[in-house]
Amino acid sequence: MSEDTRTPGGVALPSELIGRKRDGGSLTEDELRTLVEGYLEGRVGEGQIGAFLMAGVLRGFSRDEAIALTRIFVESGAMLEQAGLPGPTVDKHSTGGVGDGTTLLVAPTLAACGVTLVKLSGRGLGHTGGTLDKLESIPGFRVDLDGRELYRVASEVGCVVAAQTNELVPADRELYALRDVTGTVESTALIASSVMSKKLAAGSNAIVLDVKAGEGAFMASEEAAAELAELCVEIGEADGRRTVALVTAMDQPLGTGIGNALEVAECVRLLEAEPQGRLAELAAELAATGLALATETDLDAARERVRDAWSSGASRAKLREMIVAQGGDPGAVDNPAATLPQAPVQRPVPADAAGCVRRVAARGVGELAAWLGAGRARKGDPVDPAVGLDLHVAIGDEVEAGQALATVHARDDATADEGARRLGELIEVGAPTEAPPTLLRRVGSV
Amino acid sequence: MSEDTRTPGGVALPSELIGRKRDGGSLTEDELRTLVEGYLEGRVGEGQIGAFLMAGVLRGFSRDEAIALTRIFVESGAMLEQAGLPGPTVDKHSTGGVGDGTTLLVAPTLAACGVTLVKLSGRGLGHTGGTLDKLESIPGFRVDLDGRELYRVASEVGCVVAAQTNELVPADRELYALRDVTGTVESTALIASSVMSKKLAAGSNAIVLDVKAGEGAFMASEEAAAELAELCVEIGEADGRRTVALVTAMDQPLGTGIGNALEVAECVRLLEAEPQGRLAELAAELAATGLALATETDLDAARERVRDAWSSGASRAKLREMIVAQGGDPGAVDNPAATLPQAPVQRPVPADAAGCVRRVAARGVGELAAWLGAGRARKGDPVDPAVGLDLHVAIGDEVEAGQALATVHARDDATADEGARRLGELIEVGAPTEAPPTLLRRVGSV
Repeated sequence: MSEDTRTPGGVALPSELIGRKRDGGSLTEDELRTLVEGYLEGRVGEGQIGAFLMAGVLRGFSRDEAIALTRIFVESGAMLEQAGLPGPTVDKHSTGGVGDGTTLLVAPTLAACGVTLVKLSGRGLGHTGGTLDKLESIPGFRVDLDGRELYRVASEVGCVVAAQTNELVPADRELYALRDVTGTVESTALIASSVMSKKLAAGSNAIVLDVKAGEGAFMASEEAAAELAELCVEIGEADGRRTVALVTAMDQPLGTGIGNALEVAECVRLLEAEPQGRLAELAAELAATGLALATETDLDAARERVRDAWSSGASRAKLREMIVAQGGDPGAVDNPAATLPQAPVQRPVPADAAGCVRRVAARGVGELAAWLGAGRARKGDPVDPAVGLDLHVAIGDEVEAGQALATVHARDDATADEGARRLGELIEVGAPTEAPPTLLRRVGSV
Repeated sequence: MSEDTRTPGGVALPSELIGRKRDGGSLTEDELRTLVEGYLEGRVGEGQIGAFLMAGVLRGFSRDEAIALTRIFVESGAMLEQAGLPGPTVDKHSTGGVGDGTTLLVAPTLAACGVTLVKLSGRGLGHTGGTLDKLESIPGFRVDLDGRELYRVASEVGCVVAAQTNELVPADRELYALRDVTGTVESTALIASSVMSKKLAAGSNAIVLDVKAGEGAFMASEEAAAELAELCVEIGEADGRRTVALVTAMDQPLGTGIGNALEVAECVRLLEAEPQGRLAELAAELAATGLALATETDLDAARERVRDAWSSGASRAKLREMIVAQGGDPGAVDNPAATLPQAPVQRPVPADAAGCVRRVAARGVGELAAWLGAGRARKGDPVDPAVGLDLHVAIGDEVEAGQALATVHARDDATADEGARRLGELIEVGAPTEAPPTLLRRVGSV
């Protein structure tokens, strides 16, 4: 008889835990620690963690397991030092979308309202953009700050946006690298634990989340996005952080610019007036929510303060301060056209016929921008700061035949022509339709 | 925004395959080869295979996937050389049970009927015994034979029972080692592929399988055992081997001896008369089925030839020949009591009251024998060849109060006392009941 049809008598603890998850059971925090810390310290094999993650993806993790995993991730590394920063601290996170420059608007607005925001961001991948790539389109701007520099900019300016440091949540980083190659990214609990562990380790008192739903988002359905939002809020609250999540639409791009410098230019322009349009309105609502959470004030009062800071130019001044403090050229705010890189070729995309804009396919637009050079297919690939596209219409807009629906910004004529052709296919014009709402749901209370 | 809420743009092929299995899809033989061969050659990570195995355990593998995996395992190593051996060749496999000495009876009986059996066996683990451990209780018996020695004994004697060689099915061995620690043993397809790849690589024309069902077996239910049996038969037939499986009961131990030398002594004793009792009758049926398959004769005629070989002493003579050819002391057959090791202490287990034997708990009895020293909790642990227990009753037997139900064979008095106490609890005496059947189902046709 062979060994392979029997359960060994003396089972190692990790395989028992994996078996429990395989059979749909739950693990305690200590048991999860045995697996995750054991993996980091080499006592638990990569194959065991791969099997455990897949069992978790297919059987699910409980709310308590997600909270425990988050805590284990946070405790695996250092915490960001935020003590002594002026005012209450708030953090902001988006699950990733297309034309989503909210951080560039929320961060200076919160600073202008007397709240400090230390934001560790990521880079773009696939069809979604990344805040660091956008900021790096500003000449001289530095995103790789150490803990001391982060603290200095935050205390001087009130906001800082930089790259994740290696000291924070190493367990999440190790596990995510494994999830990425083992088909185990798609788990609400693992996504929530990963997102929230970074927020908790970054140390802010309040957290405002923007969980995207739609074809251009990681979560396609509003229900799945709401489930992720609820779990993130529960994890934050369980750790004593005031947390609210907005579930927002990502079926069409949020802003009009898609591409790094184009998005910076759009944000600078938006800060010159009252918050208007889908991107600015959502950014203002995220800022007001964060402000209300951090200062424990009424949401309507917070909305008014945000609107004042924005309309008075205080937000724009804070963005300029932050750019300067991080080594960037203030011309990005003072004279964007002369300062930010521009693509050599601009090509309009005309409407074939009159009608109403029914669809601006977010994922396709994001992929097109990446194809133009604004994004990357693989981590570590370089991006072109200048290229991308500008949308001149959104769903619900009436257009005339021949009217420019968008403009492609490309490196050369051939790419511009092909880009314009493709972009035309991503914008559908037809029978009248309503402009859809951006804010779908609010999770958690201010 | 962070990387962890998005699907990367450029997905490596293995993670796509894992994702397909995670979502319940099927993989082609080439795709399975990409994963399994990639793992052996270091291109696919252990974490990826762990995740893939868990996805397969929870989502299932198709019949075609099981056949493909078996072929990949076989092709990963060498085939055993069987060409030129006298007569047709047959192989036999049991999924593991308690008191299951069938190989010691089937092998010499088939040889006595003119069919050659080259049997690669395993060692005991947990509550189940292993044929190699039993044979090694015979002084001098060698189970570690190389390919040339295997061929020599098989051609001279007609049967040989030895340890699996390292050249055969390395992919199965690597994968099984990973399954063992990742909670991914429990998959009918993976078990069937593992079992059948070893049988196919061993090269016999016909294969007879004994798939155990019951509390002492790996498969507790008859349905699960039948499913495994059917898949094994399909895999064998798909490779052109004549294959039949018997699904047999493993709720009580099959033989009366449980322990290495005790089981050899029982088999020698059984070969001295006609096949009688549950162990001998099942062994005769397995031998007849293998003979009928290998020689393409009628099953009833094969049963008669088996009975003749057994009753005439030809089977017993073949067992003696095989023992001598593998370096063992022929006294094990000629004078077992003087040749086989004996435990220093024997302790009877009396019935508390008169009644009918209703239960002899196979798993508990197997675990008790292992506790006495006859088995091992972990691979590589030594076993004591002498200790174990002899059952004097089976389910359905009437007993008197004080009658010995069994005898414990132990190293010392304290162990014997405790063993007898525990064994008493594993044998239930009460209201009358029928002796249950051993052969539950036959899968495949002769």
